[in-house]
Amino acid sequence: MADNKVLIVGTMAFDEVETPTGSSGKIIAGSATYIALATSFFDLESAIVSIVGRDFPQDYFKELSKRNINLEGVEIDNSGDTFYWKGRYHKNLNRRDTLATDLNTLANFNPIVPSYFKDSEVALLGNLHPRIQLLVLDQISTQKTTIILDTMNYWIERTWDELVQVVSKTDVITINDEEAIQMTNATNVMSAAKKISDMGPSYVIIKKGEHGALLYHKEQTFLAPAAVLDNVVDPTGAGDSFAGGLAGFLASQSKLDFETMKTAMVYGSSVASFCVTDFGTKSIVNTTLSQIKERVKYLKTLVHFEAP
Amino acid sequence: MADNKVLIVGTMAFDEVETPTGSSGKIIAGSATYIALATSFFDLESAIVSIVGRDFPQDYFKELSKRNINLEGVEIDNSGDTFYWKGRYHKNLNRRDTLATDLNTLANFNPIVPSYFKDSEVALLGNLHPRIQLLVLDQISTQKTTIILDTMNYWIERTWDELVQVVSKTDVITINDEEAIQMTNATNVMSAAKKISDMGPSYVIIKKGEHGALLYHKEQTFLAPAAVLDNVVDPTGAGDSFAGGLAGFLASQSKLDFETMKTAMVYGSSVASFCVTDFGTKSIVNTTLSQIKERVKYLKTLVHFEAP
Repeated sequence: MADNKVLIVGTMAFDEVETPTGSSGKIIAGSATYIALATSFFDLESAIVSIVGRDFPQDYFKELSKRNINLEGVEIDNSGDTFYWKGRYHKNLNRRDTLATDLNTLANFNPIVPSYFKDSEVALLGNLHPRIQLLVLDQISTQKTTIILDTMNYWIERTWDELVQVVSKTDVITINDEEAIQMTNATNVMSAAKKISDMGPSYVIIKKGEHGALLYHKEQTFLAPAAVLDNVVDPTGAGDSFAGGLAGFLASQSKLDFETMKTAMVYGSSVASFCVTDFGTKSIVNTTLSQIKERVKYLKTLVHFEAP
Repeated sequence: MADNKVLIVGTMAFDEVETPTGSSGKIIAGSATYIALATSFFDLESAIVSIVGRDFPQDYFKELSKRNINLEGVEIDNSGDTFYWKGRYHKNLNRRDTLATDLNTLANFNPIVPSYFKDSEVALLGNLHPRIQLLVLDQISTQKTTIILDTMNYWIERTWDELVQVVSKTDVITINDEEAIQMTNATNVMSAAKKISDMGPSYVIIKKGEHGALLYHKEQTFLAPAAVLDNVVDPTGAGDSFAGGLAGFLASQSKLDFETMKTAMVYGSSVASFCVTDFGTKSIVNTTLSQIKERVKYLKTLVHFEAP
């Protein structure tokens, strides 16, 4: 059994996704689900801290357990249903509207980190209320653990003070380009990255969707490519699986430096590129580690050029 | 003197540009001007075919001539003024509105290609009415010459049939991502690139602004990075200087293949990254070849990663 551990806090959810070409129906999703599946390609143990309701299928827990995903920290709250989100993507899939958000049992979430995962190499705070993220940070050994934070506009707009506290305790932040600009009032992503870095995180990762992701670290920058795809079905979970692939690769390495982070981002990009080719987690569960590695090689070729 | 020749057809113009942070005043611009300046970094002779009015400053011709830019094919039409364009950029500089377009003498343009440039290695058909582009193609040896076409939504919407004719005779096309999708009714840039390639061009380059550019050629793809900048002043001319840098590098090489095209795109990206840091041509005329080459190296570092 691997020694490396990744702790994941985030949602487990039902989603319903509509795209210009189809509908997912009610499917299992949530940030923690995508992240955990993405980490499971690597030689490590991961654990989810989350909450579900009485309607969440027990069989799915078995699927996750088979992938060495520890579910001790997943509370089953029989007083209500699982968090539910419904959204509709616009043409070209680059924007979406939220049609429904039912917190359900997520409103009662009090995260409990399993003891064995309190000293994990990596803790990934998935998209969730910053108050919950803080409650998790209070339970873990932040000296030893690399803290990765994923957040979004919803929390920037509604829970700024708590978000700032989480950001100040974070080593690596992943955030969308528009949201980074919103968060900092910057006029470009480079300035936004610098300002966010000043708030705490040594590594700032700006996600640019189909245009890849930018890494900023101590005046150094790196651009991770996104695969060029003509078969995107559903972008939901792309950011989560990117973060999960990144966290999984980092946890499997002995050190954290700029070069390691660069490769970790490309692994994240590789996992995300599979995630988006079908609704929900369907594609990611059918992907193999060798496919992930092949795509990393493809991404290297995609951006390689000679500079005479 | 170099043997390599680049023929450029496009506009010479006065622009007035407003951005959220400033105004350019009335400045010299136009697609041919930007393209010619961008080609002038390379060891070659370039020639502009264009038209100006009675108000165009003679001194500027001297500036261009000093850079080995041949102006025999620039008609001075004293019956009217030079083409004038006024535009205003939105916040973040990623969109703009046209406030004024006065064709003036451009309406009378009948392009005459100087004999010496009829067998140029490269002919770049800058953004202009496709009818004018066709008149240029009729005058040159298209067997020997690599034809590069730059076009935009204005012509897609208004002069489709003539545009299709030009595209069918083109070796390399450069077009913005949104416009490529508009042109082909595709849902993503990869499909758009394939469809455009079926219309004629062996090399299809999709420009993605600050996100770089995609090359598609016979099932192969390449992503050229854009420099990550926090000092963009005026994006006007970025696409032209990209195309000019690309054309200049290609003309300076002995062969045209996928690898050469990749490097040419990165040179284009390098030149464009200088162009946008000031209004009009101000920055590009103060840039040196060694700065262009340094930035190409930076772009290589920007995307380099280890894939273990």
